Amino acid sequence: MSRSVSNTLSRLVESAPFNRLVTVIILFAAVLVGLETYPALMERFGPTLHLLNNLVLALFALEVLLRMAALWPRPLRYFQSGWNVFDFAIVAFSLLPGLGTYAVAARLLRLLRVLRLIRTLPDLQIILGALLKSIPSIGWVLVLMLLLLYIYAVAGVFLFGQGDPFHFGNLHTALLTLFSILTLEGWVDILRIQYFGCDRFELPDPALCTQPKAQPLLAVVYMVSFVLLGTLVFLNLLVGIVVNSMDEMRKSLQETRLPPPGSLEQQVQEVQARLREAQGMLEALVKTRD
Amino acid sequence: MSRSVSNTLSRLVESAPFNRLVTVIILFAAVLVGLETYPALMERFGPTLHLLNNLVLALFALEVLLRMAALWPRPLRYFQSGWNVFDFAIVAFSLLPGLGTYAVAARLLRLLRVLRLIRTLPDLQIILGALLKSIPSIGWVLVLMLLLLYIYAVAGVFLFGQGDPFHFGNLHTALLTLFSILTLEGWVDILRIQYFGCDRFELPDPALCTQPKAQPLLAVVYMVSFVLLGTLVFLNLLVGIVVNSMDEMRKSLQETRLPPPGSLEQQVQEVQARLREAQGMLEALVKTRD
Amino acid sequence: MSRSVSNTLSRLVESAPFNRLVTVIILFAAVLVGLETYPALMERFGPTLHLLNNLVLALFALEVLLRMAALWPRPLRYFQSGWNVFDFAIVAFSLLPGLGTYAVAARLLRLLRVLRLIRTLPDLQIILGALLKSIPSIGWVLVLMLLLLYIYAVAGVFLFGQGDPFHFGNLHTALLTLFSILTLEGWVDILRIQYFGCDRFELPDPALCTQPKAQPLLAVVYMVSFVLLGTLVFLNLLVGIVVNSMDEMRKSLQETRLPPPGSLEQQVQEVQARLREAQGMLEALVKTRD
Amino acid sequence: MSRSVSNTLSRLVESAPFNRLVTVIILFAAVLVGLETYPALMERFGPTLHLLNNLVLALFALEVLLRMAALWPRPLRYFQSGWNVFDFAIVAFSLLPGLGTYAVAARLLRLLRVLRLIRTLPDLQIILGALLKSIPSIGWVLVLMLLLLYIYAVAGVFLFGQGDPFHFGNLHTALLTLFSILTLEGWVDILRIQYFGCDRFELPDPALCTQPKAQPLLAVVYMVSFVLLGTLVFLNLLVGIVVNSMDEMRKSLQETRLPPPGSLEQQVQEVQARLREAQGMLEALVKTRD
Repeated sequence: MSRSVSNTLSRLVESAPFNRLVTVIILFAAVLVGLETYPALMERFGPTLHLLNNLVLALFALEVLLRMAALWPRPLRYFQSGWNVFDFAIVAFSLLPGLGTYAVAARLLRLLRVLRLIRTLPDLQIILGALLKSIPSIGWVLVLMLLLLYIYAVAGVFLFGQGDPFHFGNLHTALLTLFSILTLEGWVDILRIQYFGCDRFELPDPALCTQPKAQPLLAVVYMVSFVLLGTLVFLNLLVGIVVNSMDEMRKSLQETRLPPPGSLEQQVQEVQARLREAQGMLEALVKTRD
Repeated sequence: MSRSVSNTLSRLVESAPFNRLVTVIILFAAVLVGLETYPALMERFGPTLHLLNNLVLALFALEVLLRMAALWPRPLRYFQSGWNVFDFAIVAFSLLPGLGTYAVAARLLRLLRVLRLIRTLPDLQIILGALLKSIPSIGWVLVLMLLLLYIYAVAGVFLFGQGDPFHFGNLHTALLTLFSILTLEGWVDILRIQYFGCDRFELPDPALCTQPKAQPLLAVVYMVSFVLLGTLVFLNLLVGIVVNSMDEMRKSLQETRLPPPGSLEQQVQEVQARLREAQGMLEALVKTRD
Repeated sequence: MSRSVSNTLSRLVESAPFNRLVTVIILFAAVLVGLETYPALMERFGPTLHLLNNLVLALFALEVLLRMAALWPRPLRYFQSGWNVFDFAIVAFSLLPGLGTYAVAARLLRLLRVLRLIRTLPDLQIILGALLKSIPSIGWVLVLMLLLLYIYAVAGVFLFGQGDPFHFGNLHTALLTLFSILTLEGWVDILRIQYFGCDRFELPDPALCTQPKAQPLLAVVYMVSFVLLGTLVFLNLLVGIVVNSMDEMRKSLQETRLPPPGSLEQQVQEVQARLREAQGMLEALVKTRD
Repeated sequence: MSRSVSNTLSRLVESAPFNRLVTVIILFAAVLVGLETYPALMERFGPTLHLLNNLVLALFALEVLLRMAALWPRPLRYFQSGWNVFDFAIVAFSLLPGLGTYAVAARLLRLLRVLRLIRTLPDLQIILGALLKSIPSIGWVLVLMLLLLYIYAVAGVFLFGQGDPFHFGNLHTALLTLFSILTLEGWVDILRIQYFGCDRFELPDPALCTQPKAQPLLAVVYMVSFVLLGTLVFLNLLVGIVVNSMDEMRKSLQETRLPPPGSLEQQVQEVQARLREAQGMLEALVKTRD
């Protein structure tokens, strides 16, 4: 392939219309995977949908080939971008011969195609990048929340495991229960089972209530302290994200304002010129006022 | 109509008392449409309410005519304002002869009159304007949330559609279910149906449970990851709105803070502008040197 | 009464120990009114509690008299403070002879005594003042929320009143239902009654379901749009409060930083001195770098 | 023990690998206490787990001794740090001979070991410190919330105690009910019991409904005002935390931004400090003149 062809291709795959076309095809693929969820449609138009899915796959494969060809004579540089690797993997796995037998994997692959949308919409990529960037800065708050969950979960199993095995029967059940309490969903009922005992306030599965035990004070202290601590930590998480986002914003604003660099002397001289102007103005001010 | 009459009318329709009178009439129309919701009242005072509604309509029509006349000799300039078009449409559709037969449409029109309140209360208009302005800046976060909902909904139908057709039977049901989970309303019960299987943890409609299937690990990973991602995206939405509102506010504050020209304040502010420039230069200097 | 006595009293009622003593008495009165809620205690210690309540009343009356006497020879200046009027009213109404027959009113008066705490704790008064101050700035957002509630309530009665009279039977019921939906409490169930019809998804009071009607699309549009709009308006409310609080804080910080005023000339000269220092430093900087 | 040995020990206990090793042991202890919550595991590997627990205890004791020895010749300075006292207490109580008979206390001690993690992870310590620091600044908001809860609880017992003894039977029950309403969990049902009377809208324990009483207006005013006030106070709490956190952050950022002495940055910063002073003076000047 001559270099001029690869140059033309390079301009093509980086052009706005090409990008828009790819976006439309991905949206079409997204609609297709959505239609597959309706059994009635699948029965009637199954073969058509199958055909359209294969067409989308062919177009995606063509796109991969075009992008590689645009990098000729070094097509393997294509794999230097993470998004390209993702695109290639989605196409390659779909083309694997044996996959037809694993319907779930094939469906998952078709669903993952929707994620390609993030690549073709740069604004979405920026938002997602900001989201991912905020994770480390809030990481230690998450560790603190995990620690809180773990300690309360172990204590919950010891204290309430026999009285309420449905919610506190073992460690992973207790962790899930405490996570649901963090979302404040149904926490009052969980408290009442301990407050009155599972024989007087029914469990979702009453057969589990073998050792009813009412310990109102302990239960109230445990649950109210957990709700308060959980809310406090969550609020701090929120603050962490807000402060982080605002900082990022300020930084990006400052970067766009940076002037072209000159020599140190020149720069200082400009500052001094401004200061001299300021002093002149102040003198004029005093004169006109007196 | 002579020009002096239209001038007088122009002063009238822009005067504060006229505006207050219109506000009172709209509030009265709002009370009327509220009273219509009580069948007992409708039976006893139906004709009176009907009469009062027609009176309000006549007053609204009169207002439209006055506002048009005030623009004489070019009354059609009235339609240059969106709010005027809205007012005119409400009056015009109510006067259509055949409308009496479509009770719902007539009622809707009477209800829409309440929205006219936004026009007569400028402060309300400002708040609403700020709300509407914040929508584009948070638009991509909403797109991201839609993408999250769509992917989880399709996956939910494939994974849980047979085990819990009530919540994940098809795509639109799953989308609604996931939206309700985003509000954290009843998400624990939806999780439990998958955790225990719909035969052991009852659906709202037990007849739908034809293929009970317990897949605890998959369900926990799916639901907990969705709650965490949804909350994270929502928090970012919140941050977007907050940052946006503060920015808007700061801008409007800076505009209103501009002092009258030639005053002491103005002079000092000019000095301060120079000093701020000097500081910006110093900061840039440090940045380019590092 | 001589003036020196009133001076001594004035120092007394404004002293910290007196204030602390009053706080302790109010806290004691708060505990008393709390003990009254336990019928068993009332039966056994009823007369004692009655006696203690009268003692507290006597002490409050004494406090009022002391504060009035401290303002001698113009005791009526006591009523210039809103808090004093509140204190006086609580004592005066409790001393009314006929009140004994209205147990509820007497109890309410005893409960209102607890509010006196706000006066004796200045920090609490500041927080409360800030809360009250933020109300006007968020007032129009509240008006917008009321407008949203009213329009959706009237529409709700027209659209869903017959299918779900329990939640949308008339205007005030619908307003309450929509307020509960704003808190996201149980909104999914209310949606489902319309989605499936009240004959298939049971009302809290099934006897009310006389005209079952399933209108899924309309119900979803109505509820989802209300939840989204309500959340958006609420977030704006939140932003309003946050921005307002930060502004208040900044203002109060700036006020405490204000230096004592001097002559204009003096002030400008000091600014110039600082600027000259800055310029000298810049010159030294350039010299040491070159 | 010679001083050189204690010096070597001192370097050891402060080294990063030693700290990492302690962290690993604590994590191992956390896993052990988690495994204890599974009865099946305890039956099969009970003795092994017991042995491993004793091993962890021995390692913790060794750590305490090493840290003390590192301070030779004044080992008691070990107790000057609060964390050291905590570590020592956990080891000492576990070694008490009689403790074996109190299984709960022994388990609690093993669970508390997990908290030692906070000490070995400095970042976690900083986050926790910030959380604890924000408590006093939000203290008065908490007092206000307590006052709100107390007044509504006493009023709730008087007004609704007979009609709904399950939620408002006495003061502590009412306080718990109001706390759950603050989290917006199930508040609509509590309202409905008063709205319709406990005979028409069932209590969780119907036997308690001895004096059904429907007081819709009073109930709506009570509940809606409480939800609104509670939310408003909570929002203020949130604002308090956010403002406080941002302030703390800004301070710590300013401290860490201080450049090394004599650098270009330092010189420019001193100039900037002078300019900032000049601007502050100008602002004060304008303020005192207006």
